[in-house]
Amino acid sequence: MHQYRYNSGSLWAQRQLLRKKLIAPAAEPAQKATIPNNMITLVGVGQVGMACAISILAKSLAHELARVDVLEDKLKGEMMDLQNGSLFPQTPKIVADKDYSVTANSKIVVVTAGLCQQQGDSWLNLVQKNVNVFKFIIPQVVKYSPDCILIVVSNPVDILTYVTWKLSGLRKHRMIGSRCNLNSARFSYLMAKTLGSHPSSCHGWILGEYGDSSVAVWSGVNVTSVSLQELNPEMGIDNNSENWKEVHKVVLQSAYKVIKLKGYTNWATELSVADLTESMLKNLSKIHPVSTMVKGIYGTENEDFLSLPCIPNTRGLTSMINQKLKDDEVAQLKKSVDTLRDIQKDLKDL
Amino acid sequence: MHQYRYNSGSLWAQRQLLRKKLIAPAAEPAQKATIPNNMITLVGVGQVGMACAISILAKSLAHELARVDVLEDKLKGEMMDLQNGSLFPQTPKIVADKDYSVTANSKIVVVTAGLCQQQGDSWLNLVQKNVNVFKFIIPQVVKYSPDCILIVVSNPVDILTYVTWKLSGLRKHRMIGSRCNLNSARFSYLMAKTLGSHPSSCHGWILGEYGDSSVAVWSGVNVTSVSLQELNPEMGIDNNSENWKEVHKVVLQSAYKVIKLKGYTNWATELSVADLTESMLKNLSKIHPVSTMVKGIYGTENEDFLSLPCIPNTRGLTSMINQKLKDDEVAQLKKSVDTLRDIQKDLKDL
Amino acid sequence: MHQYRYNSGSLWAQRQLLRKKLIAPAAEPAQKATIPNNMITLVGVGQVGMACAISILAKSLAHELARVDVLEDKLKGEMMDLQNGSLFPQTPKIVADKDYSVTANSKIVVVTAGLCQQQGDSWLNLVQKNVNVFKFIIPQVVKYSPDCILIVVSNPVDILTYVTWKLSGLRKHRMIGSRCNLNSARFSYLMAKTLGSHPSSCHGWILGEYGDSSVAVWSGVNVTSVSLQELNPEMGIDNNSENWKEVHKVVLQSAYKVIKLKGYTNWATELSVADLTESMLKNLSKIHPVSTMVKGIYGTENEDFLSLPCIPNTRGLTSMINQKLKDDEVAQLKKSVDTLRDIQKDLKDL
Amino acid sequence: MHQYRYNSGSLWAQRQLLRKKLIAPAAEPAQKATIPNNMITLVGVGQVGMACAISILAKSLAHELARVDVLEDKLKGEMMDLQNGSLFPQTPKIVADKDYSVTANSKIVVVTAGLCQQQGDSWLNLVQKNVNVFKFIIPQVVKYSPDCILIVVSNPVDILTYVTWKLSGLRKHRMIGSRCNLNSARFSYLMAKTLGSHPSSCHGWILGEYGDSSVAVWSGVNVTSVSLQELNPEMGIDNNSENWKEVHKVVLQSAYKVIKLKGYTNWATELSVADLTESMLKNLSKIHPVSTMVKGIYGTENEDFLSLPCIPNTRGLTSMINQKLKDDEVAQLKKSVDTLRDIQKDLKDL
Repeated sequence: MHQYRYNSGSLWAQRQLLRKKLIAPAAEPAQKATIPNNMITLVGVGQVGMACAISILAKSLAHELARVDVLEDKLKGEMMDLQNGSLFPQTPKIVADKDYSVTANSKIVVVTAGLCQQQGDSWLNLVQKNVNVFKFIIPQVVKYSPDCILIVVSNPVDILTYVTWKLSGLRKHRMIGSRCNLNSARFSYLMAKTLGSHPSSCHGWILGEYGDSSVAVWSGVNVTSVSLQELNPEMGIDNNSENWKEVHKVVLQSAYKVIKLKGYTNWATELSVADLTESMLKNLSKIHPVSTMVKGIYGTENEDFLSLPCIPNTRGLTSMINQKLKDDEVAQLKKSVDTLRDIQKDLKDL
Repeated sequence: MHQYRYNSGSLWAQRQLLRKKLIAPAAEPAQKATIPNNMITLVGVGQVGMACAISILAKSLAHELARVDVLEDKLKGEMMDLQNGSLFPQTPKIVADKDYSVTANSKIVVVTAGLCQQQGDSWLNLVQKNVNVFKFIIPQVVKYSPDCILIVVSNPVDILTYVTWKLSGLRKHRMIGSRCNLNSARFSYLMAKTLGSHPSSCHGWILGEYGDSSVAVWSGVNVTSVSLQELNPEMGIDNNSENWKEVHKVVLQSAYKVIKLKGYTNWATELSVADLTESMLKNLSKIHPVSTMVKGIYGTENEDFLSLPCIPNTRGLTSMINQKLKDDEVAQLKKSVDTLRDIQKDLKDL
Repeated sequence: MHQYRYNSGSLWAQRQLLRKKLIAPAAEPAQKATIPNNMITLVGVGQVGMACAISILAKSLAHELARVDVLEDKLKGEMMDLQNGSLFPQTPKIVADKDYSVTANSKIVVVTAGLCQQQGDSWLNLVQKNVNVFKFIIPQVVKYSPDCILIVVSNPVDILTYVTWKLSGLRKHRMIGSRCNLNSARFSYLMAKTLGSHPSSCHGWILGEYGDSSVAVWSGVNVTSVSLQELNPEMGIDNNSENWKEVHKVVLQSAYKVIKLKGYTNWATELSVADLTESMLKNLSKIHPVSTMVKGIYGTENEDFLSLPCIPNTRGLTSMINQKLKDDEVAQLKKSVDTLRDIQKDLKDL
Repeated sequence: MHQYRYNSGSLWAQRQLLRKKLIAPAAEPAQKATIPNNMITLVGVGQVGMACAISILAKSLAHELARVDVLEDKLKGEMMDLQNGSLFPQTPKIVADKDYSVTANSKIVVVTAGLCQQQGDSWLNLVQKNVNVFKFIIPQVVKYSPDCILIVVSNPVDILTYVTWKLSGLRKHRMIGSRCNLNSARFSYLMAKTLGSHPSSCHGWILGEYGDSSVAVWSGVNVTSVSLQELNPEMGIDNNSENWKEVHKVVLQSAYKVIKLKGYTNWATELSVADLTESMLKNLSKIHPVSTMVKGIYGTENEDFLSLPCIPNTRGLTSMINQKLKDDEVAQLKKSVDTLRDIQKDLKDL
C-alpha cells in the first residue's frame, strides 16, 4: 500500500473506462527509475513536519512530496488534507505511508521526527531517546534513497546530525543540521526590528551549537557593511549600556518562550528549512549557517558537528567559510564544542 | 499594548542610540492613515487560522498581517513564531493582540474563529454557539475597518456569512463565505486523479450549501471543454455503472474523514482561502464558487446565503454567474436553500 | 571557450588566493554528469529568444540556462547582461556559446531560431529557409542532449516540429510545437475582456494549424462550465448578430497587427512558452494545446503535426485528449491538415 | 482614447448581450477614485521600458500597469503583445496611451524614457537633451498622480533625478534614481563568480555617481561578515598582486561592453528596477543603494544627487544609512559629487 486511497480500487478501475474515452496515451508508461525527479521526503508528521510540508509546497520545490511516520492515522489525515488542496500549489504528487518504499529515489530527505522539546526541558535530555528513534529511521531512508542529501531538523540537532552520519554510512558532506540557520534568522529579525530595517539587510551570524552555548559573532554584525561594533565598541560585551548582548539572549529564549506560549515552535523553523531546501535544490551556492562536521577547524580534534557558514548545494555541503573570529569568539566556539562532546561521548548503541 | 514585545521597552529605547548613529530619517514619520495599505486581518488562532496565516505569508499578499483572538498566550506564541521567521517571507509587519484596534484599516478580514466541527458532529449543530461568538467579533471588526471586505471561513459557513451580514450592517457584496471554493477544488482533485491530469485542467462545480445538501453540477463537468456527461450520459445518476456520483460523496466525506484521522482540517481550507484572497487583493476578476446572498436567483425568495460562481474583487463580490442548471440540479439547489433556511429562521439574538 | 569571460583567466586565477583563504572545499568537485540537473537550453537570440530567457529566469525554472546562436556578439552581450543581474533571479548559472557543447545534458531545449515572419509575409513562405537553419541546429542539439525534450517555437511551427522530428531521430512524443498554446491564451484573453472576467476563467480552444486555417472550437467555449453556445446558439456562425466569429479573426490577426506595430511579437509568445516549460519541468500533467503528430486522429493518414490538447510532462508529451468536435469542426481540422500537408510534401533535403 | 481596442466599439457593445445573459452585477460599478489601487506607470517603450514591463508583470506587483510614450505604434504594439499574454501573469489590467490621463493615480512611476547611451558616447553628453525630454514628461506625470513616487532610470541617472525633483515640485524623498542598485548587483555577481558563491552572499557597495567616478567601498566588502580587506589588506589598492581593483573597473565597463555587443543594456537594469519596486510597494524596509539628495552628507554643500544606501518604502525614501567610509573613500565620493556638480550647474531651462 504505497498511497492511501479514498475508496476501493475497483471503483477507480471502473472509472477508467471514461478515462480511456477521453485521454489516449502518447508514450509508454515511464519506469519510475527513468523519471528525472525532484522528490523530497519528510520524515515526521508533528507540528514541524506539517509546517515543513506546507512551506515546501508553497515554494513549489518538489515534483513529488513523500511523507513517512509511524502515526498512521495522522499521516493519512495529513496526506488527504494536502491532496484536497492540490489545485493550488504546483506539486503534482503527494504520497504518504509508514512503509519507506514510498520515499524511494528522494533527492532530499528532511528528518523532523523525534520527541520534541517540552517546556522546562533542557533539550539535551532528549538525545538518547531520539537516537533510538533515528536508529529506526535512518537505515530505511538510506536503503531507498542511497543518493539523497539528509537535512536533520530534530533536536538536539547537532548531535542528531552526527548520529545520522554514523547511522547512514554516507559521507559527511551529505548531511546537514538545519536549526542554526534559524537562529541567525531570528537574530537578523531582532536587529532589523531595533533598527527599523528588513532582516535581509541586517547581517549577523549565530554559530556553534544550536543551544545555549551558541556564539554570536559580534565582530561581524553589520548593516550595509557598516560594522555595528565600530559604531558601538562595547557591542556584545557584558554591562554594555545599550545591552546588545540581550539580543543574543532573546534569540536563545525565543524557542523556550514560544513553546511556553503555544506548546511548540514550528513556523520560523519551517520557513528556515524551506529556504535551505530551495538553496540546495536550485544549486544556488548561497551561504547558510548549518551544522556540519568541524574536525580540524579552530583547533577541534574530534568528529563534532556544529554550525558554521557553509555552502549547501544539490550535491550536499560543498564548501565551508573560514569565518574570521576574534579570540574570545574562538574560545566560545570551543566551549560550544565541549558542551556537545560531553553528551556525544556517552551516546549508546551507535 | 498593540504589539507584544520580547522585553522591556527601555531596552529597545537604549539601542536607539546606535540606530541614530547608523540611520538618518529622510522623511517625516507617516501618519498611519496616510500609508497606502495592503493589510489583512485574521480572526482566530485555531488550526485553520494558523494555516491561513502561513499561506497568506507564503504568497506575500499583505504589507501587514494582524491577528486577533481571545486566547492571549496562543496568540502571542504564534505571533512570535511567525516574526522569528520574518527574514523569509515578504510581509514586513506581523502584529497580534486581543484588542481589535490592532486590526485598524484592514482591506480584508478573514474570520476563522468559532467552535470547530468535531468528529461525529453534524456541523449544523454548531450554529447558535458560533452566532454568539460572532456577535462579539463582527462589530469590533467593522468598528476598526469600516471599509473592509469580510471572508467568513468558520462553519456552518453559509449561515455564518448571513449572520456576519446582519451583524456588520455592511452591504451584502462586502461579505463572502469561502468554504465551497474548497469543495470544488476537492472535486477537481478527485477528477484529476481519476483521469491522470492536473486539477486545474478538470472543471467541476460544487454549489449550494457547504455541506451534505450541496449540488454537484454534473451537466457542466468537463475537461478541455469536453463534457464528460456526453462521454458517459449516466454520469451523476444513481446506479451508474461507473458510479461517478461516488466522487461527490467522497468530496462531502473528505472533511469528516480528515477530522477523524487528524482531528481537524486545515491545509486544503487555507490553500483555498489564500487563493481567494489573492484573487480579491489583486483584483483579478477570477470566478470562484463563494457563498453570497441569493435572493431572487433560481426562484429563491429569502435572504439566504449559498455558493454560486461569483467574481470577488478588491471591492467585494462584484458579479455573479448565471450558472445554467438542469431541472434536477435546480431542484437540488432549492432543497439546499431549504436546509439552510430551516436552521436560519430559528437563530436567536440577531 | 565554453563561457565568455570579462577578462583574462590569469586575473581570475590570481584572485583564487583570497578565495582559498576564505572558502574551504568540503566535498570533491563534481563530475558534470553526476550533478542532478535542471538545465534548459534556448537556441536563438532574437526577440523571442530573449523574451523566453527572461521569462524562464523570472520563474526560476532552471539550475542552468544555456544559450546558443551563430550571432556571437549579440549572444555574448545578452549573456553578460543577464549575468549582471544574477543577484535577482534564482538561476545560478547562465552560459552562452556558439559551440553546442555548452548545452550538454539539457532537459528541455527551446528552439526559437530561424527567420522571423515579416510584415506582409505569409509565414508559410518561411518554411524552406528555416528547414535549412534547423538542419544545422537539431543534430547538434541531439548530439549533446540525447535525452532532451524539444520545444519548437520558430514558425511555421507545425511544419518545423515535423522537421525537428525527422532531423532529430527522436521518438515523436519528445517534441512539441508551442505556438497554439498562445492562440488559445489570446482567445481566452479576448473572451475575458468582453465578459469582464479573468482569462483563466474563460475556456476556449484554438486547435489545428498555428495560422489562418486554425479551428476555434465554438462548441466547447464555456465560462464556469456554462456553454456560451447554449446562451447564443449562433456563436461562431457567419452573420451572427453578435459576430463572435470576429473574436477568432482577431486572434489570428493579433500577430500580424503586433508585427506591423512594433516589428515582431515576443512577450505573449514567451509567457506562453514559460508556462508550458513550467508544466513540463514540474511534471504537472496540465493540458495544453500543443503541436504533435496526429496520424490516425480524426481520420488523418499522414505524419502531420498540428495542435490538439495534450499532456506535456517531464518525459515529453505523454497523453492526448480526444477532443469531442462537431462535424463542421472536424471538417475544418481536416482542412487545416491539408493546408500543412501541401507545404510539407514539397520540403527538400529532409 | 484611453485604451487601444482591436476593433470597433460597436462590436464589443453587441457582445454585451451574451455578457448580460451570463453575468449579473452584484455591486454598483466603482468610481475609479474609490478603488484601492496598486498601479504602476512606465514612461518609455525603449528596450529598458519593455524589460521593466515584463519584469514587473512577472513579479505580479501591480493591479494595473500603464505605459506612456510618444511612439504610438510601438506603444500600441507592445500593449497588445502584453495583453495577449494576460492569461499568465497576475496583472489584470494593462493600458497604454500617449495621453497621460491613462496614468492617473499611479503609486509608482518609473521613467525610462530619454535618449540612450550609444557606443562610444560619454553618457554625460546626454544630459541636456534628456532634460528637455523630462520637461515634457514630469509635469504630466505629477498632474495625474500627484501622490506618486518617481523612480528615475534614464541616464545620466543622478542628474536626471535632480532634474525630476526640480521639475516635479515634489518633496525630495519622493524621487529615487535607480541605476546604482544595479552597479552593486554587478559587483556582487563578479565577487560571487570569483569566490564560487551566490551574489546574495557577497556584499559590496558601489556608491556615488552612476558612472566612472563611482566609489567601490572596499573597506566594507565582506562574505558572511568576513571582511575581505582583512584577508587581503591590499584589496582595492593600485598594483595589488590580486588586482581586485580590476573588479570595479569591470563593473564600470559592463554597460559599455554590453552596449557594444548588443546595442543596449536592459535585462540587468530591469531586474534591478523590479527588485527596487517590489521593496517599495511591499514596504519591506530593505536597504538599496539609490540616488538621493545628499546635501549635508560627507561635507557636500549643494543639492546634489548621488547614490548612498537608503530605505525606499511605500512613502518614498524614508531613511539613509550613515555609511562609514575611510578617508580615501570620502575623498572619492566628494570627487564624484564634483563631477556631477560641474555638469549640473550648466543645465539650462530648469
